[in-house]
Amino acid sequence: MPIHHDDPAALRQACRSGAFDRPTAGHAPGRVQANLTIVPQADAFDFLLFCQRNPQACPIVEVLAPGAREVRAAPGSDIATDLPGYRVHRRGECVEERADVAALWRPDLVSFLTGCSFSFESALERAGIPLRHVRQQRNVAMFRTSQACVPAGRFAGELVVSMRPIRSRDIARVSEICARFPQAHGAPVHVGHPHALGIADIARPDYGDAVDILDDEVPVFWACGVTTQWVVQRSGLPFCITHAPGKMFVTDLMG
Amino acid sequence: MPIHHDDPAALRQACRSGAFDRPTAGHAPGRVQANLTIVPQADAFDFLLFCQRNPQACPIVEVLAPGAREVRAAPGSDIATDLPGYRVHRRGECVEERADVAALWRPDLVSFLTGCSFSFESALERAGIPLRHVRQQRNVAMFRTSQACVPAGRFAGELVVSMRPIRSRDIARVSEICARFPQAHGAPVHVGHPHALGIADIARPDYGDAVDILDDEVPVFWACGVTTQWVVQRSGLPFCITHAPGKMFVTDLMG
Repeated sequence: MPIHHDDPAALRQACRSGAFDRPTAGHAPGRVQANLTIVPQADAFDFLLFCQRNPQACPIVEVLAPGAREVRAAPGSDIATDLPGYRVHRRGECVEERADVAALWRPDLVSFLTGCSFSFESALERAGIPLRHVRQQRNVAMFRTSQACVPAGRFAGELVVSMRPIRSRDIARVSEICARFPQAHGAPVHVGHPHALGIADIARPDYGDAVDILDDEVPVFWACGVTTQWVVQRSGLPFCITHAPGKMFVTDLMG
Repeated sequence: MPIHHDDPAALRQACRSGAFDRPTAGHAPGRVQANLTIVPQADAFDFLLFCQRNPQACPIVEVLAPGAREVRAAPGSDIATDLPGYRVHRRGECVEERADVAALWRPDLVSFLTGCSFSFESALERAGIPLRHVRQQRNVAMFRTSQACVPAGRFAGELVVSMRPIRSRDIARVSEICARFPQAHGAPVHVGHPHALGIADIARPDYGDAVDILDDEVPVFWACGVTTQWVVQRSGLPFCITHAPGKMFVTDLMG
């Protein structure tokens, strides 16, 4: 039976020691979890501007000073060791998955933490709105759309969305609840009509797992943090580090 | 009788030709007006991060690419000529006031447009909430507080606030209305008790003009765009261009 971590600092310590290397969903409940993107300072202005121009896909939780490794929203943390897993990208391709990136650290690296959907998913479940992928313990279904993000410098690419089937009668309430979490992608970007987003087959996601859509449900789409990884890939960025899928940085923030 | 400009493009053209060199308040009603800060690319990441960390004082309306002069929210515009007046700062001191900055332009300059209070002031007046400085055709009263902004790189300094006397019975509604304008400083940061903000004498503002506070009124404080100019000054930035006081950039955006 794997250990369950309620305390965010203990979870980060377990990542650091190598004792914890699994996805973070469901751990440290109530704490804000974040996507990680680390870029060299030379690209940091453009990336920050990209986040600022695309706040639904890349809502900023915290940006560290160049070279800094301790997150203010997680005192005592080390961004280079405290995630369960990292991916290293060179020229836009993922070349390596690692347990830590301390050996790759450079004083010019700038770390960006951007929000993820766990906060609003917890709030929806608490409000009695079931989420099929959570109940089925699958990854959420994600799709690359035909909708371009607002570019910034070398960063450009299409919006990636997550999809959750929602009962028709719940959609207004889901929108209202999610709008309270702008740092977790906020309200849906689109409801119904996958083809309008350029999605050819709703049963075949580009990332994650397919889920059924029942007769009384409508597919609802949210801007997704995977947008960042897609844009980094599309942009051929010479060097970049991200979290490994599902292995987020867990802050002390209550969200 | 001075010409009144309703059309934002015509107003910008009048600035460019030198025909208009006065404060922009009341012109192009309904259009978003913005503070301008231009910094070299070497300082642009830190300044963007400062804005991101202090969104009430520096709500971003638009950031131009390095060297770019046309604002997307104002097609055909030229950021170097289309304001009624500019200030040039060197080593944190204002050394010159100019009608345009085309002669000083460099390909590494990055222009930041941040929101100003005109949008919420119009909304308050429309809601029947009188603003004394508007009725008396004065500048709003502004104060440097003892409250530090969240620093970013070399950018650090205290929050500057504007103060408007509001009737006690209107304060909740004022808060609600202003909260709808996050790009125009949003809801008040403080209501009542100037001393809690480190303001020694409410009758002696650091910038702008004093206004009376009547018996049924409370001083209400908003984060103010002058924070940027104060922080640039405090930080001893080698080179920076800002708008001259009250002479804002007028966008085409409806706000």
